[in-house]
Amino acid sequence: MSDPVRFEVVAQDPSSKARAGLLHTPHGVIETPVFMPVGTAGTVKGMTQEELENLGVQMLLANTYHLYLRPGHETIRELGGLHRFMSWPHPLLTDSGGFQVMSLKSLGRVTEDGVWFRSHLDGSSHFFSPERAVEIQLVLGADIIMTLDECVEYPASHETLQRAVKLTGRWARRGREYYLGIRDSGLAIRDGGVGLAVPNPLISHGANPESRVTSPESQLPSLFGIIQGGVDKGLRRESAEEITELGFAGYALGGLSVGEPKAEMYDVAEYTAELLPADCPRYLMGVGTPADLMECVGRGIDMFDCVMPTRNARNACVFTSEGKLVLKNARYARDETPLDPACACAVCRRYSRSYLRHLFVAGEMLAAILATHHNLHFYLDTMREIRQSVFSGRFAEFCSRVRALP
Amino acid sequence: MSDPVRFEVVAQDPSSKARAGLLHTPHGVIETPVFMPVGTAGTVKGMTQEELENLGVQMLLANTYHLYLRPGHETIRELGGLHRFMSWPHPLLTDSGGFQVMSLKSLGRVTEDGVWFRSHLDGSSHFFSPERAVEIQLVLGADIIMTLDECVEYPASHETLQRAVKLTGRWARRGREYYLGIRDSGLAIRDGGVGLAVPNPLISHGANPESRVTSPESQLPSLFGIIQGGVDKGLRRESAEEITELGFAGYALGGLSVGEPKAEMYDVAEYTAELLPADCPRYLMGVGTPADLMECVGRGIDMFDCVMPTRNARNACVFTSEGKLVLKNARYARDETPLDPACACAVCRRYSRSYLRHLFVAGEMLAAILATHHNLHFYLDTMREIRQSVFSGRFAEFCSRVRALP
Repeated sequence: MSDPVRFEVVAQDPSSKARAGLLHTPHGVIETPVFMPVGTAGTVKGMTQEELENLGVQMLLANTYHLYLRPGHETIRELGGLHRFMSWPHPLLTDSGGFQVMSLKSLGRVTEDGVWFRSHLDGSSHFFSPERAVEIQLVLGADIIMTLDECVEYPASHETLQRAVKLTGRWARRGREYYLGIRDSGLAIRDGGVGLAVPNPLISHGANPESRVTSPESQLPSLFGIIQGGVDKGLRRESAEEITELGFAGYALGGLSVGEPKAEMYDVAEYTAELLPADCPRYLMGVGTPADLMECVGRGIDMFDCVMPTRNARNACVFTSEGKLVLKNARYARDETPLDPACACAVCRRYSRSYLRHLFVAGEMLAAILATHHNLHFYLDTMREIRQSVFSGRFAEFCSRVRALP
Repeated sequence: MSDPVRFEVVAQDPSSKARAGLLHTPHGVIETPVFMPVGTAGTVKGMTQEELENLGVQMLLANTYHLYLRPGHETIRELGGLHRFMSWPHPLLTDSGGFQVMSLKSLGRVTEDGVWFRSHLDGSSHFFSPERAVEIQLVLGADIIMTLDECVEYPASHETLQRAVKLTGRWARRGREYYLGIRDSGLAIRDGGVGLAVPNPLISHGANPESRVTSPESQLPSLFGIIQGGVDKGLRRESAEEITELGFAGYALGGLSVGEPKAEMYDVAEYTAELLPADCPRYLMGVGTPADLMECVGRGIDMFDCVMPTRNARNACVFTSEGKLVLKNARYARDETPLDPACACAVCRRYSRSYLRHLFVAGEMLAAILATHHNLHFYLDTMREIRQSVFSGRFAEFCSRVRALP
């Protein structure tokens, strides 16, 4: 049976490992390489869904950990799944909660069975097993869901990394088995196969069972595996071999951009990407700056997510074709130029640095709204340029130009 | 010489004092009755200027007190005036700061010469004379500016009210004389009259003096007078007579909606409106609920501003055709209906109460953004309906229908 998500490489850069692809999902086709803005709690902070559509966002990431705690996956199930809940009829990806367990680690405890953690909201105690993480994500009903992994901070001992690699492997196996069990039970409760439309039995869509098969909300998400191993290539190889042997629709590189030097991150990303099947999408989690996107596309990565464009925007830091600007700086108080004179986004076409600075200094919401819009446009536009350069055979030229910037 | 702002009544309701008009300003023609959203610091909290345009906002109010303190009117002058600074090429009105002095009164002190006040930002000491209030507003360069007034809280003694009425009258005279002096000096520094385009000598627009005459940013604002007197009809009459005798392009009713019973507010608004010239716009400052707008249009008011739709939205309170909803209420956690099933705004077309509630509970910016959009749409749409009903002779019918709502 076909996977709900299907990937095809449509162009390959001759000078690097950069490639352009199409990722077919129940909610639409995504052009890769793709950058996914982060909508932690079912919203990209400060953006309406209309604005994300206008920016050309193809796919959003939402955090399982946050949505599980609030409003709760059962609430979202009753409301028809995450797409419908947040009114985003386009592709969605949910993470597994593993990263949050690391980043909030004083609240969590990892066991063989899974992760115990305390809610950062009310201190209540919760448990994610690999099966439970998949179940909750099936209930949320994104297009792509992730196996539970153990993400380790940098630096870490070889022993710690090795333990995490092995545990992540066992969890991947358990998550996958649970997923396949659900998929087969899903098949059992409908009358026959309808192409790619595998039903998701964990989302209810009213009384008519037929409507569940045809609505994209009701289709089964695709499960991606995660490779761990820090900056240890031997462990990365071990993890990649184990996870690819299990077999997933796509593969993520976890445990990078957690504090290691940039050169090591690029190197390990390239090394690991090569170990993954060429016909599957490769997703580098939590990365990075616009330059990181470019460097890692050149090393064979297809998918990225990062809070950087949105979080930086809220902290008055905007990306431009000439580098970052910190808008609270007094030098912008009377600066009538747009954030980036080379940018064609709606913010740069209308507002000045002086106005943005005023909004930040005055603590006005519009500051974050406009800066977020601009930064997302910058990221998405960078990705569009990268993809175009792969098609036109000018990726190396693009990289030289970007690397020469101040 | 014509005033920069010109008003014409184009329809009169036969059953009430409601009327529809056109208010011609340097930045466009406003259909009255009009509701002006409040953009305190040069931004309507949570809204982009594009969104305000899409909502059909005709005119914004900005607060002189806030802009004077931050970013400073001199900064705004250097940046070409408030329209250009905030990229709002449509009509603007600034208040005089008098209301802020009352509402932050522990920080202020009223003397014959003007108002001493301390900045709520840094405690620094500032002084607004009637002349200075006009000067600062001319520098900001809105289409309509207000004389400095003394606004008194409710309840107040007759003596306090009377003193405020007399002081407001003397300040109106001083502000008006200062304004006329500037206007004449403005005339003196250009080569000849060009229709309505009276230049504003306090805004600089580059080296070419001609461009100042043709740019709407460079035109002189129109000065409105303010009537005080609380709920004392005798004092309202005294104030109205004094202010109208001086002669302004429009007249505002200040000192209402400051705590008095609603019936008294309606009664005093009606009484005062009748004392004002029929061919001038009448502006009721700081009012009110959607029902208040309707009731006061029926009593002869043409212009309104109020923070209620925007402030309530941020506090999770939305206006609907069936009354107010408090979105944090748990009853909406699984409510898939839009905020107002009868509403055609972009928010009601796309998002559910359950999603909005989640956003408010999670403290997400999008909560305020969507609720503000909806509330502004509700206010503006109410005003459009009111205006239409005046044209179609169905204003009384409209009022009966609204008054019958729960």
